[in-house]
Amino acid sequence: MDRRRLDAAQAAVRSHGLDALLVGPSADLRYLVGYDAHAMERLTLLVLPGEGDPWLLVPELEAPAARASGADQLVELRSWDETEDPVALVARELTDPAAPGAVAVSDRLFSVFTLALQEALPGTGFRSGGPVLRALRIRKDPAELVALRAVGAAIDRVHAEVPGLLRAGRTEAEVARDLGELILSEHDEVAFIIVGSGPNGASPHHAVSDRVLAPGDAVVVDIGGVKDGYCSDMTRNYAVEHLPAGYAELHAVLEQAQDTAVRAVAPGVPAAAIDAAARDVISAAGYGERFIHRTGHGIGVDVHEDPYIVGGNEELLAQGMAFSVEPGIYVPDRYGARIEDIVLVTEDGAERVNHRPRTVLLAG
Amino acid sequence: MDRRRLDAAQAAVRSHGLDALLVGPSADLRYLVGYDAHAMERLTLLVLPGEGDPWLLVPELEAPAARASGADQLVELRSWDETEDPVALVARELTDPAAPGAVAVSDRLFSVFTLALQEALPGTGFRSGGPVLRALRIRKDPAELVALRAVGAAIDRVHAEVPGLLRAGRTEAEVARDLGELILSEHDEVAFIIVGSGPNGASPHHAVSDRVLAPGDAVVVDIGGVKDGYCSDMTRNYAVEHLPAGYAELHAVLEQAQDTAVRAVAPGVPAAAIDAAARDVISAAGYGERFIHRTGHGIGVDVHEDPYIVGGNEELLAQGMAFSVEPGIYVPDRYGARIEDIVLVTEDGAERVNHRPRTVLLAG
Repeated sequence: MDRRRLDAAQAAVRSHGLDALLVGPSADLRYLVGYDAHAMERLTLLVLPGEGDPWLLVPELEAPAARASGADQLVELRSWDETEDPVALVARELTDPAAPGAVAVSDRLFSVFTLALQEALPGTGFRSGGPVLRALRIRKDPAELVALRAVGAAIDRVHAEVPGLLRAGRTEAEVARDLGELILSEHDEVAFIIVGSGPNGASPHHAVSDRVLAPGDAVVVDIGGVKDGYCSDMTRNYAVEHLPAGYAELHAVLEQAQDTAVRAVAPGVPAAAIDAAARDVISAAGYGERFIHRTGHGIGVDVHEDPYIVGGNEELLAQGMAFSVEPGIYVPDRYGARIEDIVLVTEDGAERVNHRPRTVLLAG
Repeated sequence: MDRRRLDAAQAAVRSHGLDALLVGPSADLRYLVGYDAHAMERLTLLVLPGEGDPWLLVPELEAPAARASGADQLVELRSWDETEDPVALVARELTDPAAPGAVAVSDRLFSVFTLALQEALPGTGFRSGGPVLRALRIRKDPAELVALRAVGAAIDRVHAEVPGLLRAGRTEAEVARDLGELILSEHDEVAFIIVGSGPNGASPHHAVSDRVLAPGDAVVVDIGGVKDGYCSDMTRNYAVEHLPAGYAELHAVLEQAQDTAVRAVAPGVPAAAIDAAARDVISAAGYGERFIHRTGHGIGVDVHEDPYIVGGNEELLAQGMAFSVEPGIYVPDRYGARIEDIVLVTEDGAERVNHRPRTVLLAG
């Protein structure tokens, strides 16, 4: 890790007319200094002024972990001990009573810290840090594209094992335990595991349950992990022994929708147009009411980040963006289906990082 | 779960002179309505007005999960779909342009939401929600005490297995994997796992690494899980085959410090006095500089919550409070030691919920 991201972020702080950006434990912090800090009641905060040297405030007992991350090679480390007030410490460094100015805080900083900072710095404007780092994080550099391809291949290898796991008589939770081990064998950590069998597949964010798999169940498997700091996220649909009635037709529509949306990806196309491309195919087939979520989300150091592929988002896609294309169709009380690949925006189109077949695979 | 906690919280909203308390995904939300929502970029928010019915706003695709939690039996569920602005939706319900008033937000709500709410509700005062729920959460009711005893016994049973896991030649990570399974066999989820062997034990928040255990290593094992919504957190020290030089003496001081602190616990005693009780014993033995953290933290639906057992906290202990007593001594580059039990404040003293021996146990 080098100082390039910090330099670019400091330039963004200046161009947004801010005095400083304050970054708590989050993907933003990992992105800037490589430190995967734990968000908790003790304040950890990277202070990135527009001018001057950035510094990282950590609780004294987290200092060894911060140093082990190598963050101290990039920014000065300062620690606070158990009886100090870390908010007052930050406020003292930021305050110029003659010119209160404006600061931004990272989006996922706990509100308790932002409210305390606001109280300690009356007159200072507080803004969301998302827009400041947005332009940096939304377009991936070549090293990040390499990382996203690698983690995409990793989750491909996990999905290749799924048909062997989905046997009638096993519970979703048992399958998830095996998936956890497989994800870990290919990643540094598990991000999430969804095994939605039968009617559970009709809830897009159902995680896992003790439901027992039965022949004729459709099973939505949506899994992701983190490898070298970058996230995977991939969904495929399986059927235990045989497909339930109507599922083949529904899935064929979904395959066409996902493919159409991916083929619509290119620099200069609005994000909303990718959502519309998938939605139009599904609506034309009569399933429009059953596609109840956005088509995708950006991915990188966070599983969900900009750009969001959703109606109303007129942002133009650009080379180096990375996001999911994941239309779904959900039939309450029966089953659901979702096909999800991560794509990278290339000079003139899209590159998929996932390459497993997108058809329903028989399992068990 | 019944409405008693919601009623008490609404009374607290009124007594704090607030119009409403806004609660995002957090232990606060679990505490109030039993819904373990995922904190993410899509807003989930419980709106608890001082007067009138509370309601829970969820992203449409989280509605099935919210209903599965039973939260809809307690509060009205409202969902927002992918193209709506949930902040505007909340602001509309809260705004009385004639009387802007004040609201509190839960401490761990992401700042991006609080900043957006502030922008949507100019003139409205925003405060930290911690103090509003503090009085409710800090004193446990009889059912909560039962849950804390049960989860304390669960982590006792896990620690009973630790000596069999710490063999020379194994890595901390291998031990942690086994601990994860053992914790899960006794809890609903794993909260955290620290295996600090040899010099790694000198960093209180070291998690796990690929360091290989060797004979003569001291090993700090600090583990916790969640069972029926309540947390365990317990630390013991082990030695692989034999104790390193000086460790027995250090540990004897620590045992005395922990015991002295627990015996100091009683209603009416300031939290800081418990910290001082442990610290005085350690300082008198010449290790004062090596006890680098507070003595404890409250525990309940969060692993760390009020009351904090730390110098400067003059809050008086009261019957029903639950917290850790966990002094430690850390010798850089050599080893560390920490003894941690959860105690409940009784009518006239303390009840430990952990009952394993506090001496160093030989392993391997």
